[in-house]
Amino acid sequence: MNLQNASIEELRQLEAELSREHHAFCQQDIALDLTRGKPSSDQLTLANQLDGILDGEYIAPDGTDTRNYGGLEGLKDMRQLGAELLGVKPSEVLAQGNSSLTLMFYAIMIAREFGLGQKGASTAAETAWKNTTDEIKFICPVPGYDRHFSVCEQFGIEMINVPMTSTGPDMDIVEGLIKADPSIKGMWCVPKYSNPTGTIYSDETVERIAKLGLTASSNFCVFWDNAYAVHDLHGYKAIANIMDLCRKHGTEDSVMQFASTSKISHAGSGVAFIASSESNLKHFLDVLGILSIGPDKVNQLRHLRLFPSYDALVQHMDKHAALLRPRFECVLKHLNANFADNDLGQWESAEGGYFISFNTQPSLAKKVVQLAGEAGVKLTPAGATFPYGNDSENSNIRIAPSMPTLDDIEQAMLIFVNCVKLASVTKALAAAK
Amino acid sequence: MNLQNASIEELRQLEAELSREHHAFCQQDIALDLTRGKPSSDQLTLANQLDGILDGEYIAPDGTDTRNYGGLEGLKDMRQLGAELLGVKPSEVLAQGNSSLTLMFYAIMIAREFGLGQKGASTAAETAWKNTTDEIKFICPVPGYDRHFSVCEQFGIEMINVPMTSTGPDMDIVEGLIKADPSIKGMWCVPKYSNPTGTIYSDETVERIAKLGLTASSNFCVFWDNAYAVHDLHGYKAIANIMDLCRKHGTEDSVMQFASTSKISHAGSGVAFIASSESNLKHFLDVLGILSIGPDKVNQLRHLRLFPSYDALVQHMDKHAALLRPRFECVLKHLNANFADNDLGQWESAEGGYFISFNTQPSLAKKVVQLAGEAGVKLTPAGATFPYGNDSENSNIRIAPSMPTLDDIEQAMLIFVNCVKLASVTKALAAAK
Repeated sequence: MNLQNASIEELRQLEAELSREHHAFCQQDIALDLTRGKPSSDQLTLANQLDGILDGEYIAPDGTDTRNYGGLEGLKDMRQLGAELLGVKPSEVLAQGNSSLTLMFYAIMIAREFGLGQKGASTAAETAWKNTTDEIKFICPVPGYDRHFSVCEQFGIEMINVPMTSTGPDMDIVEGLIKADPSIKGMWCVPKYSNPTGTIYSDETVERIAKLGLTASSNFCVFWDNAYAVHDLHGYKAIANIMDLCRKHGTEDSVMQFASTSKISHAGSGVAFIASSESNLKHFLDVLGILSIGPDKVNQLRHLRLFPSYDALVQHMDKHAALLRPRFECVLKHLNANFADNDLGQWESAEGGYFISFNTQPSLAKKVVQLAGEAGVKLTPAGATFPYGNDSENSNIRIAPSMPTLDDIEQAMLIFVNCVKLASVTKALAAAK
Repeated sequence: MNLQNASIEELRQLEAELSREHHAFCQQDIALDLTRGKPSSDQLTLANQLDGILDGEYIAPDGTDTRNYGGLEGLKDMRQLGAELLGVKPSEVLAQGNSSLTLMFYAIMIAREFGLGQKGASTAAETAWKNTTDEIKFICPVPGYDRHFSVCEQFGIEMINVPMTSTGPDMDIVEGLIKADPSIKGMWCVPKYSNPTGTIYSDETVERIAKLGLTASSNFCVFWDNAYAVHDLHGYKAIANIMDLCRKHGTEDSVMQFASTSKISHAGSGVAFIASSESNLKHFLDVLGILSIGPDKVNQLRHLRLFPSYDALVQHMDKHAALLRPRFECVLKHLNANFADNDLGQWESAEGGYFISFNTQPSLAKKVVQLAGEAGVKLTPAGATFPYGNDSENSNIRIAPSMPTLDDIEQAMLIFVNCVKLASVTKALAAAK
């Protein structure tokens, strides 16, 4: 379908056809949901042995009675697993309850309100963001993850968009912003299979991010949400080790990493990790110790039984990939079949993670989401992948194919593709008139 | 032992004897811990069937797949259980992860920073404590729970001591303070088996607390930590239903209740509850939804299998009581045998909860804790039961007998009693000289 050379009459005819098809979909009683990156029931079942895996033995290998209070930092062996997942020393990682989102919220709350005590300050409080600037700002590569943006919005943190490139955020812009504005205190990053574009940060990008601490204000911190560290669809892909690069440049305090087992074991009852310099973690623990009686260590012990080694965990991810791959392929098949030879849509062929990021022609995303909704296909609200829900191009739509069945994705994509075409033709027609 | 009529010579002889005994204890290799209210291993074992109790069935009775994301408010049936525990409607309670301490921290953070939107305010933010007063103050009945005080201290909230009476906090003082000072935004309460005195709030006290919302500032909130709601040692005792009384007086927004299963099932992996007006919970959820992907619903389902009804839960508590009772009786036996006929110490005979609160003669608590430490008996630091660790009388010591074995408590109490006597005699001698 190529609209550029079509006559008004051709466009009218096309619109009528697509509209007829759309209304036919609307007549059916369809209710499909491509909104959120939730694992499917089949994926969750892969870890069903978790309940009962302890066989009555609640004592951890290090002698901890996991049933009782305490153990704020997490079980020793769980921290070891988190260290391997995030490429740090065990002393540089804490293992907590569900979820990494909660740990990110905590980290922002603590850095903003109480301070992480960076770089030789005499008290943590004097490093608190709110005590060093009137307006706290964050760099947000876009499109990005809506829940990151929600945390910033909750705390009144001003978000500055930076475009994603194929190698990660546009680092020229990032470096320029940070050099110019000391009220920038943080930056969101999903370095591997970035949500939603699927971008893998290049080694150069990772090193440039590790070096931001050299020019940024002393309490600047990168929020490195490595949500998809082992969530490969086509074999394991490594990214550069940010902590090693921070060590090389002496910027260990300027990055906090996050990950969890939510999309590895059970989404709602996983184990989450935060990794950073020992100094940052010390100040984080000072506050964590006030609000927590310690993480759920029983659940951590269960996870250690399921994943006795990091290799076991990585192997487990192959089973997830086997379930996810056909779902992603189904989405891509429909996109390729309908939009490969025209300019109605652009997308990235994600090699992992949970999303496919689709761009309509400018100004059509909301219309497409609305049309799909009418036909019973729920999509993430257009704009959600941008701070304040504001996609100035109104073109990005995040497709989350993990949870529905293959048949449902087939059906949903037929509808989606038709919606994109219909919206595009209507636009072309309006322009031609 | 009565020191008042003793001669200097008699006191000297007594001090020498007690000192000899103390040094004999010190020679032994003793390491006993009466510091924290942790359940014993035997108590924890009462709930060991939790792991494996699901038998592969992760779907809740209401159809929720507990393994996946979501369900922010907690499982329907778990909220029902929490509602019965706290005497509210299911719509007035949320079931979350471990622990109630975390929910109390959240509640203070939200009330202080974001606001709970009380009484017809147009935005939640305008009801945030920090936006309505320069200094936030809390009323703290003393002695009280150190972790409550730590949360206040973390947020820079000024704590005002109010003495406990045998019927609860001295309400004449509380009412006077609240009438006089609109910057008082909260009050801590442990209404049943108050930590550490074991006090049960009388019906009159509960009603007077429910009425505080009538005279307090509009965003005032009682933090009602019903930590020992079903933790009776000698049969179930009811307290007045604060939510019913709030309804009677139209003050439903002025109380937030907390409880958990930490001392019912497994201390570190329990389910916690927050209960309040639907309006307060709505604003609480607005922020909870930003920081949480939902509570661990798998663990909630496990708890529902273990406690299919509130009655089953209460019956389960009889087994805890059977394990705790002899421990408490052992402590009381030693205190009675040594201090019933003199003024060296005062204590309450707790009917439930986790603590026995002991008062030395003025100015001796730190000395006693120090002496006990020398002999290998770790006690909660003197002063810990007061805000800022400051017991102006230096007399309160919290004894936590739940975790050690009976033999260990016997041994620890021999040492403790000797330390109290030794410190008292030394003091009497100094005064007599």
